Amino acid sequence: MTKKDNIIIIGAGLCGSLLALRLAQRGYTINLYESRPDLRTTDISAGRSINLALSDRGLKAMRLAGVEDKVKPLCIPMYGRLMHDNKGNTFPSNYSGREGEYINSISRGDLNGMLLTEAEKHKNLQIHFNKECEHVDIENNIATFYDHETKTKIEAKGDVIFGTDGAGSALRKSYYLERKFLFSYAQNYLTHGYKELEIPASKDGKHLISKDYLHIWPRGEYMLIALPNLDGSFTVTLFLSYEEGEYNFKNLTSEKTIKEFFQAQFPDALTLIPNIVEEFANNPTGALGTVKCSPWHYQNKNVLMGDAAHAIVPFYGQGMNASFEDVSVFDAILDKHEGDWETVFKVYEKTRKADADAIADLAIDNYYEMRDHVANPIFKEKRSIEMTLEKQFPKEYFSKYSLVTFHEDIPYLDAMKKGRAQDKAILNMLADKEINPQEAPEVLLKKVQQATEAILEDDRIAGLQY
Amino acid sequence: MTKKDNIIIIGAGLCGSLLALRLAQRGYTINLYESRPDLRTTDISAGRSINLALSDRGLKAMRLAGVEDKVKPLCIPMYGRLMHDNKGNTFPSNYSGREGEYINSISRGDLNGMLLTEAEKHKNLQIHFNKECEHVDIENNIATFYDHETKTKIEAKGDVIFGTDGAGSALRKSYYLERKFLFSYAQNYLTHGYKELEIPASKDGKHLISKDYLHIWPRGEYMLIALPNLDGSFTVTLFLSYEEGEYNFKNLTSEKTIKEFFQAQFPDALTLIPNIVEEFANNPTGALGTVKCSPWHYQNKNVLMGDAAHAIVPFYGQGMNASFEDVSVFDAILDKHEGDWETVFKVYEKTRKADADAIADLAIDNYYEMRDHVANPIFKEKRSIEMTLEKQFPKEYFSKYSLVTFHEDIPYLDAMKKGRAQDKAILNMLADKEINPQEAPEVLLKKVQQATEAILEDDRIAGLQY
Repeated sequence: MTKKDNIIIIGAGLCGSLLALRLAQRGYTINLYESRPDLRTTDISAGRSINLALSDRGLKAMRLAGVEDKVKPLCIPMYGRLMHDNKGNTFPSNYSGREGEYINSISRGDLNGMLLTEAEKHKNLQIHFNKECEHVDIENNIATFYDHETKTKIEAKGDVIFGTDGAGSALRKSYYLERKFLFSYAQNYLTHGYKELEIPASKDGKHLISKDYLHIWPRGEYMLIALPNLDGSFTVTLFLSYEEGEYNFKNLTSEKTIKEFFQAQFPDALTLIPNIVEEFANNPTGALGTVKCSPWHYQNKNVLMGDAAHAIVPFYGQGMNASFEDVSVFDAILDKHEGDWETVFKVYEKTRKADADAIADLAIDNYYEMRDHVANPIFKEKRSIEMTLEKQFPKEYFSKYSLVTFHEDIPYLDAMKKGRAQDKAILNMLADKEINPQEAPEVLLKKVQQATEAILEDDRIAGLQY
Repeated sequence: MTKKDNIIIIGAGLCGSLLALRLAQRGYTINLYESRPDLRTTDISAGRSINLALSDRGLKAMRLAGVEDKVKPLCIPMYGRLMHDNKGNTFPSNYSGREGEYINSISRGDLNGMLLTEAEKHKNLQIHFNKECEHVDIENNIATFYDHETKTKIEAKGDVIFGTDGAGSALRKSYYLERKFLFSYAQNYLTHGYKELEIPASKDGKHLISKDYLHIWPRGEYMLIALPNLDGSFTVTLFLSYEEGEYNFKNLTSEKTIKEFFQAQFPDALTLIPNIVEEFANNPTGALGTVKCSPWHYQNKNVLMGDAAHAIVPFYGQGMNASFEDVSVFDAILDKHEGDWETVFKVYEKTRKADADAIADLAIDNYYEMRDHVANPIFKEKRSIEMTLEKQFPKEYFSKYSLVTFHEDIPYLDAMKKGRAQDKAILNMLADKEINPQEAPEVLLKKVQQATEAILEDDRIAGLQY
């Protein structure tokens, strides 16, 4: 077992910072490179994913790194969705029927800054800001960076290189372009993009709408969501097609059309976003993409982690949580195979890849669910049955959302299989009038369990897995 | 409507040759560029996909181009699969219960050569061999080629450029690298590769095993197939993992291990392949990849077609047929929108993309089916039921294989949905002993139809499509 390895980590975002902290705790020598300036001293958010939802999988990784007590004060609990209809009426839908199951709105910048500060406390770790990775020579483990301060290129060689450089990963691009092995790779964009807007705090710094919920304005083609910030403001995100439908990012260019669109679709939100026209013009339109690839590593030399390996769309609130869970999973594998990087990397992908694929697919599912189905009567009945079951049988019944969000002990793949089958079972029984929310909870539970098991069994047989 | 457009087609493989022929017939001025020498005068096959299975979708496109009579003499009908067990016993399984439904073994080179010869008869068409496309400036429609004859780079500008340059398409790579639009792109490799071998003809030029079948040696981890050639030989393809399992491409390197492997798994094939060791060493190991992407075109300027847009694995025998069908579909859209290339390209992708995705997924399904399931008892019972239904109800029942292979009037997507549901219905009823092959055909038909419809309905409800 060697701890002499010099480790380069490319990317000091959420995943890279946590990984660096954890590997520094384990005694490695870490050089952490980041393309942007230090976010603790520079405002670089510029209208991009200012806040995020932290839930149990992410919190587990925070505990592993011993920083849970530093995270908690940054969190605003959200207990469910609050749906807004186009007349401004609201309807709550809790995330769980159990007590104490909620997600947390948290500022990306605050969380990232805290992780950097904790990481920097380790003498065996050094952070290099403004160094943008352009290419990695994956055979010789030499990373080339453009230094935004000196305007020159620099090189760094590591015994091991981690690419935690996000959806646009330079290490991943080197895997693709160097063609040293068969690299399966997918980047898939939705037809919708997103734009961030702001509901400011009241004059006395209070939240203007309830901070206990993730707010959703679901409209089929369009969707608006809002998450609370500690300063009383909300970060609002509009999801909208680039060029399809009556309103889209291509044609919403004038004050008149923007206000007309919001007035028709999100009238209550419009009154809360004073700078909507300026923000619409100045904030960038972000793309919604999923990235999958394999293998995640090259020999015993370098490996992808977090969004660099598996970027997902934000609709399950699991992107950050999945990246943090990567670090937990990797850490457990290091416990077993430390000293043999190739085995560590292989076992890591073997353990983690199917779960990363599953949360990517679940996030796409939820895109359609949030956009199209949350206001659908049969969907509401399903949620009502699931709330009853979770309340009555807190240790026996877990909705898909609960399995994914609150059960860090259950791998994403298992949560997906079980959760999808449950959804299908309940929706079909509702459509066939074989179940109704007024039945006794014990009857509901038995029906749902049996129908779910039958669906899983039918799928197993059709896949000839017997 | 203008026919003055100068069209560049990159790639004179099967799709490019047919497209060039068809567009020349429509009166366009065509320059067709091909990286390799003229395959009619040079042997360039080198152990790669020497023969293919031509079926109804491909034949429809041959009729469209008026060359069906030139294709027929190149075809060897194959009426089903002939399974070989590891003792050398064989078991036939027909492709259809209907008369006249079969697929055709055909030489890639003969077919491609015929299409080039037909294309060259048009004065408005010129073929440029040995010109390898390196890059396309997609904005200005300028393609850069490396000329293997003069060892220089040349440029060509077209009003419209078609990329029919196969799975490794230079035009597609330019879409990816130029980043002018959000390009969804996926390349996925199987863990298995392939290698081609040969069963030579007998001394008097006859086939040594039946030429009426596609021969399969299914072994779970491994698979061997053989398709007949007109000269009495068979092209044999071994599908094998690169590095997993007891035997793989990485460890099969000596005469001893190669023969040991074939003796254990494919003893009857071993006696028929005299040059197995040389061929194993000299023939390349091919990769099995699926490519999906979107969009397929850029503005009114250039478009991908065939494998360049949607390369698939060979297990449904549909790669060439799908590419030929592209040309049929495109031609019908040209009929409606000729003169407006942007609309033609948009409608083409809108019409064709879901079907191209479906046949890609079906081909992956069949990889597992051919490898793992064809010898499975419940699968055999399913095939037996389907043969009965197709014989007894030739106009009412179509297996998934028939829908995909023999029904050029049914889009791949519809064939996939219906076919998968039928398979699931029959397999589940067999597993639950709710059906057996000895029942009256009318009863079987009704049970299968009802169970299939129930599955499709359950899926619709779970997808909330109501």
